[in-house]
Amino acid sequence: MGSKYPPSLKGFLPVWTLLLEAALIVIFFFFTSYDTSSQDPTKVMDTYRVLRDVTIMVALGFGFINSSLQRYGWSSVAFNLFLLALTVQWAALLDGFLEQPSSKKVVIKLSSIKLATMSAMSVLISAGTILGKANLVQLVLMALVEVTAFGVMRMIQTKYFIKDNHVNMMHIHVFAAYFGLMVAWSFRRPLRETMMQKDQTAKSSSLFGMLGTLFLWIFWPHFNSALLLDSPKERKNAMFNTYYALAVSAVTAISVSSLFHPQGKINMNHIHNAVLAGGVAVGASCYLISSPWLAMVLGLVAGIISTGGALCLPMCFNHMLEIHDTGGVYYTFGLPGLLGEIAHIVLTTSQDDWTKSAMAEYQLLLDIGALSLAMAMGLIIGLLTGVVLNLKIWRGLHVSKYFDDQSFWKFPHLAVGF
Amino acid sequence: MGSKYPPSLKGFLPVWTLLLEAALIVIFFFFTSYDTSSQDPTKVMDTYRVLRDVTIMVALGFGFINSSLQRYGWSSVAFNLFLLALTVQWAALLDGFLEQPSSKKVVIKLSSIKLATMSAMSVLISAGTILGKANLVQLVLMALVEVTAFGVMRMIQTKYFIKDNHVNMMHIHVFAAYFGLMVAWSFRRPLRETMMQKDQTAKSSSLFGMLGTLFLWIFWPHFNSALLLDSPKERKNAMFNTYYALAVSAVTAISVSSLFHPQGKINMNHIHNAVLAGGVAVGASCYLISSPWLAMVLGLVAGIISTGGALCLPMCFNHMLEIHDTGGVYYTFGLPGLLGEIAHIVLTTSQDDWTKSAMAEYQLLLDIGALSLAMAMGLIIGLLTGVVLNLKIWRGLHVSKYFDDQSFWKFPHLAVGF
Amino acid sequence: MGSKYPPSLKGFLPVWTLLLEAALIVIFFFFTSYDTSSQDPTKVMDTYRVLRDVTIMVALGFGFINSSLQRYGWSSVAFNLFLLALTVQWAALLDGFLEQPSSKKVVIKLSSIKLATMSAMSVLISAGTILGKANLVQLVLMALVEVTAFGVMRMIQTKYFIKDNHVNMMHIHVFAAYFGLMVAWSFRRPLRETMMQKDQTAKSSSLFGMLGTLFLWIFWPHFNSALLLDSPKERKNAMFNTYYALAVSAVTAISVSSLFHPQGKINMNHIHNAVLAGGVAVGASCYLISSPWLAMVLGLVAGIISTGGALCLPMCFNHMLEIHDTGGVYYTFGLPGLLGEIAHIVLTTSQDDWTKSAMAEYQLLLDIGALSLAMAMGLIIGLLTGVVLNLKIWRGLHVSKYFDDQSFWKFPHLAVGF
Repeated sequence: MGSKYPPSLKGFLPVWTLLLEAALIVIFFFFTSYDTSSQDPTKVMDTYRVLRDVTIMVALGFGFINSSLQRYGWSSVAFNLFLLALTVQWAALLDGFLEQPSSKKVVIKLSSIKLATMSAMSVLISAGTILGKANLVQLVLMALVEVTAFGVMRMIQTKYFIKDNHVNMMHIHVFAAYFGLMVAWSFRRPLRETMMQKDQTAKSSSLFGMLGTLFLWIFWPHFNSALLLDSPKERKNAMFNTYYALAVSAVTAISVSSLFHPQGKINMNHIHNAVLAGGVAVGASCYLISSPWLAMVLGLVAGIISTGGALCLPMCFNHMLEIHDTGGVYYTFGLPGLLGEIAHIVLTTSQDDWTKSAMAEYQLLLDIGALSLAMAMGLIIGLLTGVVLNLKIWRGLHVSKYFDDQSFWKFPHLAVGF
Repeated sequence: MGSKYPPSLKGFLPVWTLLLEAALIVIFFFFTSYDTSSQDPTKVMDTYRVLRDVTIMVALGFGFINSSLQRYGWSSVAFNLFLLALTVQWAALLDGFLEQPSSKKVVIKLSSIKLATMSAMSVLISAGTILGKANLVQLVLMALVEVTAFGVMRMIQTKYFIKDNHVNMMHIHVFAAYFGLMVAWSFRRPLRETMMQKDQTAKSSSLFGMLGTLFLWIFWPHFNSALLLDSPKERKNAMFNTYYALAVSAVTAISVSSLFHPQGKINMNHIHNAVLAGGVAVGASCYLISSPWLAMVLGLVAGIISTGGALCLPMCFNHMLEIHDTGGVYYTFGLPGLLGEIAHIVLTTSQDDWTKSAMAEYQLLLDIGALSLAMAMGLIIGLLTGVVLNLKIWRGLHVSKYFDDQSFWKFPHLAVGF
Repeated sequence: MGSKYPPSLKGFLPVWTLLLEAALIVIFFFFTSYDTSSQDPTKVMDTYRVLRDVTIMVALGFGFINSSLQRYGWSSVAFNLFLLALTVQWAALLDGFLEQPSSKKVVIKLSSIKLATMSAMSVLISAGTILGKANLVQLVLMALVEVTAFGVMRMIQTKYFIKDNHVNMMHIHVFAAYFGLMVAWSFRRPLRETMMQKDQTAKSSSLFGMLGTLFLWIFWPHFNSALLLDSPKERKNAMFNTYYALAVSAVTAISVSSLFHPQGKINMNHIHNAVLAGGVAVGASCYLISSPWLAMVLGLVAGIISTGGALCLPMCFNHMLEIHDTGGVYYTFGLPGLLGEIAHIVLTTSQDDWTKSAMAEYQLLLDIGALSLAMAMGLIIGLLTGVVLNLKIWRGLHVSKYFDDQSFWKFPHLAVGF
């Protein structure tokens, strides 16, 4: 038995993560303090509720949306929680250090935890691309690198390109998708056919996947409006538009999925991902859009792109680029995210005052620059991370152990057909 | 393969729904605008949270409560989301046109989306009666007709019978149950025994059903108080009473289900439905009741009626009326809803000032008229809809394909025992 | 068939619970009234939202966390709801009588239902120890006794030891764990090996268990801050600290579970329980802790203790004390709860003003006294309850029917391998 499963985690994982956790506690001991300024209690509770809603989204939503692999449900859900719990601690520290580099102590506010949870989402998105292929040590390493890179990227954007927190945060989809793709590329291996069978959805797991999708669908308006608490009008707009875009992309995804099947049947995997495309696409510009039809058009286009991507890309990716994107991250977050960024640039440009054309042109350049930065950093850091993750010292999974809970979990009894 | 499954959706569904979606976007483009009046931000957020809670209830609750059919889990959850997303868009428009027929533009407020979501629930209730028997084209058609009829009914009630939004909305249970029954009647077919086997609950699906039930149980107080935001006292009463009624009906349902089994065993299907009977029964009068015992009595009676209905009605319905009510809508929503309406009429009558007996009598007549209208419209429009849905042009499912996800979904591999 | 399953519930359960329910309604009729004082609507809604969040935690969280037994999922979830619905009604009454013994009518406020729901949690915790071993009659009896004992204990504490509601309530973990252990001890029976097999987790049920765990994990900060609504600062602290403690214990639990397995594999059962240990351990002192590292240390230690307990205790308990703690209550709630109480005593002592040492010593004695009372009452009343529950008149389950839904539920068809 012992010989069949490589000791991929043995020794490494527990020592590594417990040391990491101890180090985090020490850093918190020396460098942080809670925010003790007396704030308006109503506002504190509002922030807390937003934090809770975002946590529901990332812990339940992302936890279950990837649980539909036949033999990888346990790992999907539990590793998601693990990565979330670890990343949030580090991201809150990091944001503090980057924002207040001179101050001796980082002040931890409720809003820093909220921001950290949102940053942690970048890791959960990227992890989808190598779902079932990396061990937990590799995932932890990836999480730390990615969330640091994302924090640095947001700081650079704030300093040189765009001041707005919301707009910066919404680069998360594009950044995380390209980061994930590069990591997935470095994990390219010839998958034998028996392997491919495990990369299947099972009937009851798919209902768990649907559960995750529904949580994301319901709470996405909260995510898109989570950084707009100070402007009631923008917040209301963001919720309105996200709601409409999601409604339209749900209808579109199911219709388009049926359209491309010879017998008009629907593919559950498309539904898991593409119903959310509207929320991703409307993310960057949700606070700007002033009438529902525009959000609906974005939802429609995003639904078509996302379902279309799910139909065409796997073949192209698998064969030409040798990227096996298990969770369909590229067409769930990457393409709709790109659409959303472009829509945002077009919208801000069209609302700019072009009588002062130099000013407007400069703003346009900045917007394009920020998007390019997000893509470039995602690609480059993702590539580097992928290379590092494939070093032998991490004792990665052998390809025959891919997509299988048995490599990580102690099963009560290893019955056949489990 | 192609010959075994009728091309029921092929061609029809995608074209039909994408055109519909495009039409909706065009209508939104020409006829709607967002509400730009500056409102109290606290109130806006309150409305939004209520909307979110109602969405949790309809998307997660109704999605999963019907997922316990052995081979129909995917369709239950996904079609529920599809119908919700489509109906909300149409219902928000419709309510706008009916309320402000003269104005050129419909103003979309957060409260209109909340109202639309609640109206959409009528469709989700009725869809339970023909669960597993209609294809998605038929369901979409039914949804559009039903939500239009429900909107018209509420407008008539507001104009001629009762002004109160909450009381009108609570006719939803009776309306949707009778509408659904008539549609189910038009779908009457001799079900062979192998079919009946599929109309079974599976063990792990039943836990999904229970998940849906729990979401409904937890969020029902929000549904019953969702239209009472302007009166804190009525809102508090509504939540209190719904909470107590639900607690009592949960206890009652389990007890009564055990009482009628020879070995005292409990039937999971009763639990899925009857624990919610208290929330339905107390719906219309929840804002009026001023002490907990009355709500508890309603919960008790509703639990008994609902479980009793689940025990006796299927036989009687199946054999005499030839109605096969898959989801048990009649005893989950119909009977407790009727009980709730009668309780409401009795309560308002008893609180009326009978010294001005003419006035009170008139009010009593109006209440009875409104209830009759809801039932009559449900029955008649339901019957008409059922007839239309059975036209051959919709290419309905053959009876041998009933209760089976395979007609609608692409499965990775059609293994035996799936 | 009838002979194979003992008529354990037949006759007893329905008559017993319906009479109980009727009695409750009568008591509510004579002795209660709603709170009609006009309160600040914002505060009412705040209380209501907290109630909803606590309800989500107990109905969904506790319902599903124990659903991972292979053949006991239905009972876990449904009995949990039943016990919750019944206990809340009784606990609200009881608290009213104990608090206002002189007044003729008990005034039911939203906050009394909140308190009752939290008290009901003691029953749901304890029920975990005899999961699969008691019938519903025994569970109902246990629930009524336990919640009464817990109410009396809290009243004694308030009168003679500590005034603070929050601190008293947090004794729930220790009280319920020891109560449960004693009841489990009285249910000691030699379990044959075939039985042990049923006491296994199944793959898809474990995802349901994980769902419950995640709900508890997300909503635990609300539980720990539910009684601190009046002090915004303490409430914020409680949420902060609980959040950090939970994050650390999630990371720790997974690491430690892997550390102790020869191949570094993780045990899902540890995860279900130990990720929550941080929330339990920080419960009593969450409002006091003023910097995150302390909460993190508590989370770390609690995670280690809880996972360690899960590794070592079952053997020791099973063989030496003959206690079979099905749900792992002792190391999920008992040990971390004890840790939390000790931490609370140390923290309050260290913050006391020791220049007035007599005062501080007295306070220390009171704190220790309150904890001892909770443990003693848990042990003694638990033992007595266990003895009573094993009387023959309750027609307990035969040991061969342990861990099996079939004793309680009507299955559509008793297929092999169900």
